Amino acid sequence: MALSRRTFIEHLAVVGGMTLAVAGMEALGFGFASAQTLPPNLTGKGKGTRVVILGAGLAGMTAAYELTKAGYDCQVIEARSFAGGRCQTARKGFTHTDLIGRTQVCDFDEGLYINHGPWRIPYNHRSTLHYTKLFGVALEPFINDNDASYVYYEKGSGPLAGKRVRKGQLANDMRGHAAELMAKAAAKGGLDLPLSKDDRDRFISYLISQGRLSPGTLDYGPNEGRGWDVQHGAGVTPGAGKLSQPYSLSDILGSKAWEAVEPLGEHEQQITMLQAVGGMDHVAKGFEKQVGHLIRYDTEVQKIVQDDRGVEVLFTDKDGKAGSIKADYCVCTIPLSVLKGLDLAVSAPFKDAMADAAYAPVNKIGLQMKRRFWEEDHAIYGGHIYTDIPGVGSMSLPSTGWQGQKGVILGYYAFGSDAVRISMKSPADRAAFAVAAGQKVFPEYAENFETAFSFSWHLAKYNLGGWAEWSEDARARSYAKLCEPDGRIYLAGEHLSYLSGWQAGAIESAWQQIARIHARVNAA
Amino acid sequence: MALSRRTFIEHLAVVGGMTLAVAGMEALGFGFASAQTLPPNLTGKGKGTRVVILGAGLAGMTAAYELTKAGYDCQVIEARSFAGGRCQTARKGFTHTDLIGRTQVCDFDEGLYINHGPWRIPYNHRSTLHYTKLFGVALEPFINDNDASYVYYEKGSGPLAGKRVRKGQLANDMRGHAAELMAKAAAKGGLDLPLSKDDRDRFISYLISQGRLSPGTLDYGPNEGRGWDVQHGAGVTPGAGKLSQPYSLSDILGSKAWEAVEPLGEHEQQITMLQAVGGMDHVAKGFEKQVGHLIRYDTEVQKIVQDDRGVEVLFTDKDGKAGSIKADYCVCTIPLSVLKGLDLAVSAPFKDAMADAAYAPVNKIGLQMKRRFWEEDHAIYGGHIYTDIPGVGSMSLPSTGWQGQKGVILGYYAFGSDAVRISMKSPADRAAFAVAAGQKVFPEYAENFETAFSFSWHLAKYNLGGWAEWSEDARARSYAKLCEPDGRIYLAGEHLSYLSGWQAGAIESAWQQIARIHARVNAA
Repeated sequence: MALSRRTFIEHLAVVGGMTLAVAGMEALGFGFASAQTLPPNLTGKGKGTRVVILGAGLAGMTAAYELTKAGYDCQVIEARSFAGGRCQTARKGFTHTDLIGRTQVCDFDEGLYINHGPWRIPYNHRSTLHYTKLFGVALEPFINDNDASYVYYEKGSGPLAGKRVRKGQLANDMRGHAAELMAKAAAKGGLDLPLSKDDRDRFISYLISQGRLSPGTLDYGPNEGRGWDVQHGAGVTPGAGKLSQPYSLSDILGSKAWEAVEPLGEHEQQITMLQAVGGMDHVAKGFEKQVGHLIRYDTEVQKIVQDDRGVEVLFTDKDGKAGSIKADYCVCTIPLSVLKGLDLAVSAPFKDAMADAAYAPVNKIGLQMKRRFWEEDHAIYGGHIYTDIPGVGSMSLPSTGWQGQKGVILGYYAFGSDAVRISMKSPADRAAFAVAAGQKVFPEYAENFETAFSFSWHLAKYNLGGWAEWSEDARARSYAKLCEPDGRIYLAGEHLSYLSGWQAGAIESAWQQIARIHARVNAA
Repeated sequence: MALSRRTFIEHLAVVGGMTLAVAGMEALGFGFASAQTLPPNLTGKGKGTRVVILGAGLAGMTAAYELTKAGYDCQVIEARSFAGGRCQTARKGFTHTDLIGRTQVCDFDEGLYINHGPWRIPYNHRSTLHYTKLFGVALEPFINDNDASYVYYEKGSGPLAGKRVRKGQLANDMRGHAAELMAKAAAKGGLDLPLSKDDRDRFISYLISQGRLSPGTLDYGPNEGRGWDVQHGAGVTPGAGKLSQPYSLSDILGSKAWEAVEPLGEHEQQITMLQAVGGMDHVAKGFEKQVGHLIRYDTEVQKIVQDDRGVEVLFTDKDGKAGSIKADYCVCTIPLSVLKGLDLAVSAPFKDAMADAAYAPVNKIGLQMKRRFWEEDHAIYGGHIYTDIPGVGSMSLPSTGWQGQKGVILGYYAFGSDAVRISMKSPADRAAFAVAAGQKVFPEYAENFETAFSFSWHLAKYNLGGWAEWSEDARARSYAKLCEPDGRIYLAGEHLSYLSGWQAGAIESAWQQIARIHARVNAA
């Protein structure tokens, strides 16, 4: 029987490990997608080898699931009372106390939630999608781009500064103005185009299509792409409707709002994106159903020691009682931000490398609104509101529950020093800040606000940041070192990937490290 | 109490009719959305006036629902055994016999379906969304754009002709090449830009951002937007991954595939688009729940007569038995393609006008596949495959049921003479044609095909076409005439709107005509 492409790739993974599989996929034209679509196939020995896994996030649970399947004897230690790591969803009753001691209990109505951790899955993260399929985690679209959504930039100049504009109109106008300038120059021969006469004509046709130019004059003007002031409709009135006037090129440039209009974001942000139905923590729950019995919750790692024969992890349980676990190997998924403060028996260069990654301050806040005014009054179904208000970054509207009564808006999604500044406020003051910002875009914001739940990852005890941020220098200096084991300790997590902050980074990193352990066990 | 913006607009609609409301909305900055967001408020007399409504499609049921609410005595005559008009969904057991006498019974698995009529709702069609909300029709995203989807053009020349390419990569490369040419010319002063020095710098920044150019050299090259050959991932291998090489400008131009890359489609096609959960016919069912008791099914209109005092509609029922209904007014939603063949007591100029609209030949076919290979093997979640294969137009992948076992693909969505040609084939041959076309794009197509259901609107007895197509001349000559009543007969439907083929056209047309009837009744 001939091998199918898929079977062939699986075969490569088995016989040659992941690197060969990657090469095979590339050769077969699969390269566009994630290089790592399937877990390593851990055939061979493994039975009974003890592995202690630190952290029941996606990396830890991936390791536990795959190693257990291969006959390893796994135990997972988790500091929190629940699994998932950063893969969390706040809904009614979810409680969080930050490092400053401020406790919030989420008070959203039943059925409403905010994903304050990961909230979207790129279509090209096949590793994550492998497990959602395997575990039956229901998925639905995440609206990551929306022509109807607003851009609100207030720091620029001119008539569009401090004015909300529809993203689609802004994009249409900028493309149109640029295409007009270019098409006219090309038509006049003013551009030194490296093109044949036929291709030049095709290029001008392309510009006409992209810019919605008038084919005769090459002018950019009112057009159906940017839309109507009075939309076309039935009968004679409104009938054909009344097209709207473009914003001028110089008004758009002055406002700086064009910065928000990027046609194809970074590869991970391209559409289609997906989310878990009912909250992203269903991904974590999918794993937990498989490996929950291996997890020791409410257990804080205090110290990790190792020698030639094994690893010992010393911990304290919920009641402060000390204990320990011995194992042959350790998969440690604790974020570097936290790990570097623990007593860890690794080499000095390894420790230096651990300290080299920065961790991102990240804020999110969910705002429950008593009416979905962004849909009812503004016809915006999902997507992001882009602003230059410091500490806000973007606001986001739910991709689900459309036309329902209430909804939860993501009030800000901010990084860096602005995020730190806002996170120092009390939860009530953070909500007030978010509502005041939203009010600039939506006049219905404040009157509809009911309750908030905010989260700052740099103030979360077992995270101390949203994700690892590798500077180019630090990546060159320290990253590769941490990808190698130190003795019997293997690090795993999004911090050991180029998919910073993505669930796929955690999963694929775990795949690599367990494949290494398995190779070592089999070589022994 | 101050009027809210919404209340103010409702108020305008009541006191001044729709035209004033439209003006009010424009003045208040609501213009971006549909001009008609709410049904006319039919206050005043109406009680007991008899209205016979011909056709239980969305226009007819909208009229029946609103008029009944206002106290009118409505009866609806429907030729088919079910309501909805073109708002149909084929699922297991759905039966259709076309005008050539070919009968198909849909044999999709339970839970699978194809919307062979309307299948997507623009966010800016507030009239449609008014009723989905009112009737509790659950909505979900319809993926109308997808960076991951393929473009397959075979008629051009060069290495990309007859090769499937990812839409996002194609778009990225075309924008990048164009931005590079333009940015370099602008930087050299080669373009006669109507911009200040500051704006010119901003414009170049915009081009760098849009085209993902190297800021120093203004070159377009491999970039994260177009993606990787080996995607970045965990550890050191693949680690940073390997970026892919852009297609050359002249290869793209030669292939003509750039024609498929339009960044913001016509206004109605912009994202976010919506669909009814479980099939678009749930919109029809929402109406039917309200007005079903007023509908006389399986009843064919034969003749419509009128005089100064009323209208009489003569019909035959299921068993061929003749009957008639008398009423004060008639709202006739029968498509012009069918209506012009009926015995109708209207003026000769009105009849001439009726004959002036062409009707679009439209084909769709649903193909049940036993495995969702487009998701599993190609990572394409929803969206359209664009091709220049005659008779195909586009193929579409489902926006729902992701990661399930089976799925129904829209195998072609084609108009015009190509659609007529394919529709003359037997259902089995149409399926064979669609599968052979799909096989050019997806090697998994034929081996996964299970069963098909095809529909040709020009061969559907009570439609004779997908929608009205008004040429510019015909629109100028005949459209306005048909928007006016002829005696006591008022036409309504998508054919009396500028929203050809959209559900909103049917609804908004009905709104206008019942407002006219009501004004006449109240003026009498």
